[in-house]
Amino acid sequence: MAINASIVGATGYTGQELIDILLGHPNVRLTGLYSTTDEPKAISSLLPRFAGRTDLICKKFNISEAIAKSEVVFLALPHTQAMDAVPALLKSGKLVIDLSADYRFKDLKAYEKAYNLKHKDKTNISKAVYGLPELYRAKIKNAKLIANPGCYPTCAILALAPFVSTASIELDHLIIDAKSGTSGAGKKAVQESLFSEVDEDFRAYKVNTHQHMPEINQELAKLAGEKVEVTFVPHLLPLKRGILETIYLRTNKKLTSESVLSLYHKFYKSEPFVRIKDEGFPSIKDVSNTNFCDIGIKVFGKEIIVIAAIDNLLKGASGQAVQNLNIMMDYPETVGLL
Amino acid sequence: MAINASIVGATGYTGQELIDILLGHPNVRLTGLYSTTDEPKAISSLLPRFAGRTDLICKKFNISEAIAKSEVVFLALPHTQAMDAVPALLKSGKLVIDLSADYRFKDLKAYEKAYNLKHKDKTNISKAVYGLPELYRAKIKNAKLIANPGCYPTCAILALAPFVSTASIELDHLIIDAKSGTSGAGKKAVQESLFSEVDEDFRAYKVNTHQHMPEINQELAKLAGEKVEVTFVPHLLPLKRGILETIYLRTNKKLTSESVLSLYHKFYKSEPFVRIKDEGFPSIKDVSNTNFCDIGIKVFGKEIIVIAAIDNLLKGASGQAVQNLNIMMDYPETVGLL
Amino acid sequence: MAINASIVGATGYTGQELIDILLGHPNVRLTGLYSTTDEPKAISSLLPRFAGRTDLICKKFNISEAIAKSEVVFLALPHTQAMDAVPALLKSGKLVIDLSADYRFKDLKAYEKAYNLKHKDKTNISKAVYGLPELYRAKIKNAKLIANPGCYPTCAILALAPFVSTASIELDHLIIDAKSGTSGAGKKAVQESLFSEVDEDFRAYKVNTHQHMPEINQELAKLAGEKVEVTFVPHLLPLKRGILETIYLRTNKKLTSESVLSLYHKFYKSEPFVRIKDEGFPSIKDVSNTNFCDIGIKVFGKEIIVIAAIDNLLKGASGQAVQNLNIMMDYPETVGLL
Amino acid sequence: MAINASIVGATGYTGQELIDILLGHPNVRLTGLYSTTDEPKAISSLLPRFAGRTDLICKKFNISEAIAKSEVVFLALPHTQAMDAVPALLKSGKLVIDLSADYRFKDLKAYEKAYNLKHKDKTNISKAVYGLPELYRAKIKNAKLIANPGCYPTCAILALAPFVSTASIELDHLIIDAKSGTSGAGKKAVQESLFSEVDEDFRAYKVNTHQHMPEINQELAKLAGEKVEVTFVPHLLPLKRGILETIYLRTNKKLTSESVLSLYHKFYKSEPFVRIKDEGFPSIKDVSNTNFCDIGIKVFGKEIIVIAAIDNLLKGASGQAVQNLNIMMDYPETVGLL
Repeated sequence: MAINASIVGATGYTGQELIDILLGHPNVRLTGLYSTTDEPKAISSLLPRFAGRTDLICKKFNISEAIAKSEVVFLALPHTQAMDAVPALLKSGKLVIDLSADYRFKDLKAYEKAYNLKHKDKTNISKAVYGLPELYRAKIKNAKLIANPGCYPTCAILALAPFVSTASIELDHLIIDAKSGTSGAGKKAVQESLFSEVDEDFRAYKVNTHQHMPEINQELAKLAGEKVEVTFVPHLLPLKRGILETIYLRTNKKLTSESVLSLYHKFYKSEPFVRIKDEGFPSIKDVSNTNFCDIGIKVFGKEIIVIAAIDNLLKGASGQAVQNLNIMMDYPETVGLL
Repeated sequence: MAINASIVGATGYTGQELIDILLGHPNVRLTGLYSTTDEPKAISSLLPRFAGRTDLICKKFNISEAIAKSEVVFLALPHTQAMDAVPALLKSGKLVIDLSADYRFKDLKAYEKAYNLKHKDKTNISKAVYGLPELYRAKIKNAKLIANPGCYPTCAILALAPFVSTASIELDHLIIDAKSGTSGAGKKAVQESLFSEVDEDFRAYKVNTHQHMPEINQELAKLAGEKVEVTFVPHLLPLKRGILETIYLRTNKKLTSESVLSLYHKFYKSEPFVRIKDEGFPSIKDVSNTNFCDIGIKVFGKEIIVIAAIDNLLKGASGQAVQNLNIMMDYPETVGLL
Repeated sequence: MAINASIVGATGYTGQELIDILLGHPNVRLTGLYSTTDEPKAISSLLPRFAGRTDLICKKFNISEAIAKSEVVFLALPHTQAMDAVPALLKSGKLVIDLSADYRFKDLKAYEKAYNLKHKDKTNISKAVYGLPELYRAKIKNAKLIANPGCYPTCAILALAPFVSTASIELDHLIIDAKSGTSGAGKKAVQESLFSEVDEDFRAYKVNTHQHMPEINQELAKLAGEKVEVTFVPHLLPLKRGILETIYLRTNKKLTSESVLSLYHKFYKSEPFVRIKDEGFPSIKDVSNTNFCDIGIKVFGKEIIVIAAIDNLLKGASGQAVQNLNIMMDYPETVGLL
Repeated sequence: MAINASIVGATGYTGQELIDILLGHPNVRLTGLYSTTDEPKAISSLLPRFAGRTDLICKKFNISEAIAKSEVVFLALPHTQAMDAVPALLKSGKLVIDLSADYRFKDLKAYEKAYNLKHKDKTNISKAVYGLPELYRAKIKNAKLIANPGCYPTCAILALAPFVSTASIELDHLIIDAKSGTSGAGKKAVQESLFSEVDEDFRAYKVNTHQHMPEINQELAKLAGEKVEVTFVPHLLPLKRGILETIYLRTNKKLTSESVLSLYHKFYKSEPFVRIKDEGFPSIKDVSNTNFCDIGIKVFGKEIIVIAAIDNLLKGASGQAVQNLNIMMDYPETVGLL
């Protein structure tokens, strides 16, 4: 049973990944591609890598056409543009998978503070399910609106969930040193993202003030049953895709690397896209161009070091979006993703 | 005897290189830095790598201040902005070293066609000396206005001059396959220059239509004493600085690699910044961060392959500009550049 | 109808690509992985990116086990090691797809000169089919031994075949300026392939003496019906995967860009993996991680510029190998490759 | 007053930097270059970037020649090779600047454990001065043997010294998340350092077990007057040169960003090569190709984040070595380094 799907924001980096995945997905018929282009154009002329794979035309976003053509709509839009489209899409009975941050926050104030704006669709916030399958698979199955998680949060939450939900660590001591490739910043032409600026450079940015922090805090608090405030420093890597997070924890339990590995293996034992390393730590290249999250852990007395890696465009965005679709549609969870 | 110097366009890539060279130049006192900034700002706040080296303030360009403060003015401006400033600078007796293309063409039509605009300062074109020391050192010594050569032309002309001026090759068969790092495109924020677009990519651009072609043709024609039309394909490398040009020639003379090397050694025998390789071919890393042009040559029967490399920001721009200053001021030619 | 397949040389770069493709190929059951490892090890411990996708063990190459376990054997071995294995594999009735150069040459002397060694299996040379589907599809269908083409030759031959086979160009004037990513050099630890040496560098190597030249000459001569000798200069790009070749031709026919495009479209009209660009030229990023060869062409009077791009590990190696398997087995030609 | 200098290990990455600096140093005459080469060869043929700058010959290391030719010897050798040469050099009255770890440890056991070997020159350990000018300038002035600090330790110690020496932070909570470019690993041909392995990748290595940890602990303990044990995770960046360390601290004093900046400014107020950022944090590109260490600091309640950056080959090795020479010889401290 195939489903018709549209992508809004098809020419951005997450949009491109969605096209790539969905063209190869046996249960999906890609029927609509939308972007900010004025004239309709073959997607293969906008993105030559799709020549020979599809004749689809990319048009300016037209919500009634999208509604007519598709049963599921992927919104790969900048933050704040998604909430303009969601109400009408839900009203007409479409499934919506929103890759933006617009519906990720249960606490409206936290959202408005993090993104420095007013939310325009409070009604639907409560309907949205945070699309992290490893934590919310059952809810995703019945959801109409998926708030697909942010890239840094996906990696951080998966890395920490087993500890936080079992109270194994001190919650006032969660330090996340995060590093991301450049595709995370999107395709906007700004000077600081030029090749000549990024190449051979490395730097921190939005030190302990990044908009993904409150998203991480929200989800960890749910798991912990109490308030959590992480320390979070993102850095920009001179490479295209991939996130690696090195996380420093403290415990006053008697933990060993073995006991901790066993906890993680158990927590993720049926997960198709989480891989716990029996020894060593992951590299970005182990996960790039895959939907996997790899996690390595080691205990040093009271200190614990967890390192996790994902592809920010896949498990951190478009791959996870399709994983969510698979769950919603009762397809095998890995179809199109391996 | 030190000279006071200003840089207009100080925050662009060639401007930054000029600051770096001139701060270390024993005969130059850097007195003025100008850019498009609205508010005057310490250059060290705009470009933190200069902190601890200079307290100079960068201001919006003000020609009368530049005239009052300096005896030589380096124009590191986009094409067409230089010719707005040159007349007044020359009139007030300043030396001008223009890194743009505005005064490189003797044939006004060729310039206007290549850059698709009208020239605004025809008067001073004839006064400009093409600042390639290896060919025009004597004229540079007495010049008031230097038209500093383009990066691709510097490399191509140096690679070809010995052959073209001795009629050793067929002039209707000059193929230049050129590859440049990204700093050649400047600091303008455009999508195609983003790290995420350039990294892991390589492509040709402006195939046989680049604005540096007529500049190369003009200079080779002068050497040949007849019209020359090269085939020229530039490509964009995923690296910051450096140009390498692979040049394919044909001869109906009986040439050997030895005879050709001897011709080149002789042609460049007293040149401090041209290095002829006795065997093998140059790499970009041999010349990056230097003012050298390295050249390797090999004869294969009737075919000749010449490969030349420069740093586009140094021998291809700011280094050559200072080399020109050294010649104009009778300083040792290599001062500040080794 | 699925086939059992083994890969010899599974941990090298082309071996890894084969694993990746074949794990997702619906008609192939991957049954054997072999390398130079002493102890059998899970491939997922040697190459962590395959964790969660396969439990296969990689062993030291054992030809009788490979024969017992598989109906087709992919040889992803260094040159000269393939011909040690081929005779026994063919004798036992296996299909062999050899990614090395060992069986690519019909003229034994040309091979021995290019690779500077003695061939050890002259008997089977005549049985080998050069595995370029666009030229030899019919023969591939019935072949038992495929000599999978080199990466540079695949790109060059596809770029030139329409011209050479229609006598549209001067054959004594074929200049191929080729640029390749670093994976083409394989995984051998040599100083000149270190990141610190290659990053921010670009250089030519084996100038007009590369071992792929005689392979290109052999194939073009077959198409032309006369001897062909190209000029060929390979360069090393600071990126992982992809080849782009800029080719300079001369004609004394009256050709236009339109007539030439029409010739190419016709020549490749049913090809699933060759894409002719109606305007402009290809980039490496258009083809990386795909099995496509993209070609752009433009005529400038008597000069013609052709630019072609492939992924050296896919259309230039492992992708083409699987395309050949698909043809041999009568599977849809694109299965596993789109 | 010029001094004659030799470099042992001239062709490695730190050796090359030494050549580059010393050729431009007005008070140094470079008289000897040594490496493991069998045949004497012009350094310009081994490292073409030095062509046109020096005619020096690089020879196999010969200690009596080095003694005869030079008054100061830079040892840019792998660990353990330095201690073979030091005794004879000191005996003959030479100044020795050792870039290896051999004389950095006061506690012999700590050295032998970190490097897993026996020390062969216990006698001279006590004579060695740890060459970090910002802490030991007075001792360096009179030293005969400098133990030039490691790259990671230089960055970490400078980033932490003001806090540790004023007891402003909790000493059991020093987390150093360090990232280095690839030149730190030297020029040895190993598979994991290949361009194809490092490009587009990022990973941690020697997690909390790196040999630079005890060096950092030793120096911080001296400043603190008590034992210090940092948590230290180094990572490998896909770029050539530069280190950035993100450091997480905790305090129970009432500190503000302002009070902390004032402490740092005061601590480093006369230092020519330490730059404290009044706002924001440093990037690697601010310090690459310079001898500066840039430091940014911000207080978040009880948490403090310090980020520091250096060029690992300059302030982290060869630049600092020359800074030490300048101090030993009473030259202006920045000569040759700005």
